[in-house]
Amino acid sequence: MNRKLILNIIGKIVAVEAAFMLPALAICLFRGDGRGALGFSLTILIMAALGVPSLLLKPKNRSFFAREGFVTVGLTWIAVSALGALPFLIGGYIPSYIDCLFETVSGFTTTGASILSNVEGLSRGMLYWRSFTHWLGGMGVLVFVLALSPLTSKDSGENMHLLRAESPGIRISKLVPRMRSSAMILYAIYIALTLLQVVLLLCGGLPFFDSLTTAFGTAGTGGFGIYNDSIASFSPYCQWVITIFMLLFGVNFNVYYLLLLRQFRRAVKLEELRLYGFVVFLAIVIITANVLHSFAGFGEALRAAAFQVASIISTTGFSTADFDLWPQLSRMILLLLMFMGSCAGSTGGGAKSVRVLVMLKSMRRSIYKVLHPNSVRLIHMDGEVLDEETVSSVNSYMITYFLLLAGMTLLVTVDGKSFETSFSAVVACMNNIGPGLGAVGPAMNYGSFSIFSKLVLTLAMLIGRLEIYPILVLFTPRMWRR
Amino acid sequence: MNRKLILNIIGKIVAVEAAFMLPALAICLFRGDGRGALGFSLTILIMAALGVPSLLLKPKNRSFFAREGFVTVGLTWIAVSALGALPFLIGGYIPSYIDCLFETVSGFTTTGASILSNVEGLSRGMLYWRSFTHWLGGMGVLVFVLALSPLTSKDSGENMHLLRAESPGIRISKLVPRMRSSAMILYAIYIALTLLQVVLLLCGGLPFFDSLTTAFGTAGTGGFGIYNDSIASFSPYCQWVITIFMLLFGVNFNVYYLLLLRQFRRAVKLEELRLYGFVVFLAIVIITANVLHSFAGFGEALRAAAFQVASIISTTGFSTADFDLWPQLSRMILLLLMFMGSCAGSTGGGAKSVRVLVMLKSMRRSIYKVLHPNSVRLIHMDGEVLDEETVSSVNSYMITYFLLLAGMTLLVTVDGKSFETSFSAVVACMNNIGPGLGAVGPAMNYGSFSIFSKLVLTLAMLIGRLEIYPILVLFTPRMWRR
Repeated sequence: MNRKLILNIIGKIVAVEAAFMLPALAICLFRGDGRGALGFSLTILIMAALGVPSLLLKPKNRSFFAREGFVTVGLTWIAVSALGALPFLIGGYIPSYIDCLFETVSGFTTTGASILSNVEGLSRGMLYWRSFTHWLGGMGVLVFVLALSPLTSKDSGENMHLLRAESPGIRISKLVPRMRSSAMILYAIYIALTLLQVVLLLCGGLPFFDSLTTAFGTAGTGGFGIYNDSIASFSPYCQWVITIFMLLFGVNFNVYYLLLLRQFRRAVKLEELRLYGFVVFLAIVIITANVLHSFAGFGEALRAAAFQVASIISTTGFSTADFDLWPQLSRMILLLLMFMGSCAGSTGGGAKSVRVLVMLKSMRRSIYKVLHPNSVRLIHMDGEVLDEETVSSVNSYMITYFLLLAGMTLLVTVDGKSFETSFSAVVACMNNIGPGLGAVGPAMNYGSFSIFSKLVLTLAMLIGRLEIYPILVLFTPRMWRR
Repeated sequence: MNRKLILNIIGKIVAVEAAFMLPALAICLFRGDGRGALGFSLTILIMAALGVPSLLLKPKNRSFFAREGFVTVGLTWIAVSALGALPFLIGGYIPSYIDCLFETVSGFTTTGASILSNVEGLSRGMLYWRSFTHWLGGMGVLVFVLALSPLTSKDSGENMHLLRAESPGIRISKLVPRMRSSAMILYAIYIALTLLQVVLLLCGGLPFFDSLTTAFGTAGTGGFGIYNDSIASFSPYCQWVITIFMLLFGVNFNVYYLLLLRQFRRAVKLEELRLYGFVVFLAIVIITANVLHSFAGFGEALRAAAFQVASIISTTGFSTADFDLWPQLSRMILLLLMFMGSCAGSTGGGAKSVRVLVMLKSMRRSIYKVLHPNSVRLIHMDGEVLDEETVSSVNSYMITYFLLLAGMTLLVTVDGKSFETSFSAVVACMNNIGPGLGAVGPAMNYGSFSIFSKLVLTLAMLIGRLEIYPILVLFTPRMWRR
């Protein structure tokens, strides 16, 4: 294990994080929030004290294998969250460090689950940082470094391994041959979409601060709001804008790249995109019909249903209504959407549409195979043969996913909360949604869990965001052997 | 598709079923239950009318492939259940045919889920038949035929295909080279264990009828009781006897065969058996500690915990206490045990210990594989290499299982019952347990579901019992093409 190089990379990322704290510090100073300013400045000092020594390391050995990649990604997310949580604690806004950690991991993993019952009690600077963690987390802290740091001047195996450990989805599709250019293109799209949303929200009369933080939460598919009732008080126009952008940020970014290349037909034919669109459409239709009676009219029901479907399937977690009070069928559909989640290669979480697609195809094949035991049948995706290695890795990924889901639900149940609450809390954290059902519904929060359960749920968020393995390998003894 | 041969086989099995109705008819006549006697005798006549023509078919074409095997198994279970339900309807004991069908499928699939709120309202003859369906279902209706009918005079591919479609587990391990002898040995063990249980229950002072029906329910890991409070009124001695036999019937019957061959060491070393034993032990310890406060003493808590763990993991479903009122942790453990279920090659249901074992090993391997992407690592079971075909078929089986579970839960949710009730109802039916949580807890029943949900749950029981494919293929258009 190349420990020096790993420490060096983590140090660089912490430096980037410190730089990104400066705007929050500026807001605190500008608004006379002394506690907040103290929180951010002390944190930046701590980061410097911890980060500078590792930046001074000059690792001569540049060998970097899959193992190093996974450890680096896992440890980076933990380090960045552990440090990013400090301003809340030092500023005295959240008294318990475990709560600060939960909130920050929830931010970086773009989950949006909160332990706060009164979000409006935070200062502007704190709210900015809280929402900004979503935006940073959205494309993965590492992609930043990939795009910014001189480390990536050439496409070394190092970056490939980092990207493989970090990227959501089943395959890394290279947009363009050179990795750094890929990262740059993804980022340009991300920034452009975020800016577009800010502008559209401003046009709707939303104040600048609200537009910016809401766009951060949407772009990262995070879901932290700055009001206690999330998005409920926003105008219908703003709610529709957010609905559409939540759906857009749940789409595989390759689609936008194809659109930029004017390959419209290819983009529209992508099977994952079609499944995503079909499920969104079907869920909106059924839920609208199901909740119609409790709204003033069709328009309102449609808006609430569309908003919630977009919010859940993109794994954002904003809410305009307390869907926990909706009929069982609607609640169940939303719970299933939590599992499916968004498209691979987006900022969203969940199992990803493409995995659901592979599972459905693999199910159809297994029926075929029992009837024709000696036949060979390949699985196709977007007109190409999907190699068996990929199919079987998707299946074992999902098996691991279900086993972890069951195990973590069992652990959280120790708190004695209802089955629905415990189960949906783990589902909502592991799939990076935020709100679940019952005692963790959109009108509630995660504050009432025990410290033990909060740690389990924090782990669930990291496991979900990093697609299991970068976190799981940290627990294997084999990993730490020299 | 060889339709003539399939009809011929189904006809033979219906004839066997008619013969097995005679004892129930005799009980009705003996006890002066005119309605019941009418029910059974009319049903036997209907069976004859439907069955004799197909028995007269002399299919010249004996070709029988996997496809025929699956269709035959699927259709046989449906036919046998549809006809076996008639006595309840004709006798006027259960007024709705859908309810009769639910109850009978629950019997044959050894689920034990009931729509009856007052079991004690059934006559002796009806209770006998209801419990006997468990015993018949336990080893699979087809194994009967395999063992009894002259069709099986030689080990044709036909029987292999029937057995493959019917057998629980991931592989068909041939006990002895000749299939008919295998079936005979399995049956001898089954009958011997049932008789032993009857004798032990009689020693505990239980009346003969009660001992017999309880043994039927235990041997088939079914769970229909003849009293409204299931097994709660039985003496502690009888409850312990039933606990032990539930566990015994959940063990792979190969173990008993190995014991008969005096291969003790090999039997004890079987990994599936070890996992099963370990999980049973651990669950009993945790649940005993968890429920200790609500019982008069340690002995009583241990007895209740052991009984319920044995009942759920063996997928029997008897109860001595309303575990739905137990603390959340205990309820959650029981719910997880429902998924795992018993060993392959037993009369129990669930995913089977061996599949859980393969999943755990496959999960461990997937972690290894992300660290060593180019390595080849084999999965071992009982000292032998498990071929990749088996590993991947277990994984796709489980994926199909989870997809169906999600889909059927969604369908049942249309009734508007709580998430816990809908989910645990599907889990309890699909894994052939019987009681679930909430409104389908051990003190409740399935009578309040809509006709639609009852049909979905009936399908879930068949899908679980026949391990998915024999039922699923009936819904594929490809199946019915000539």
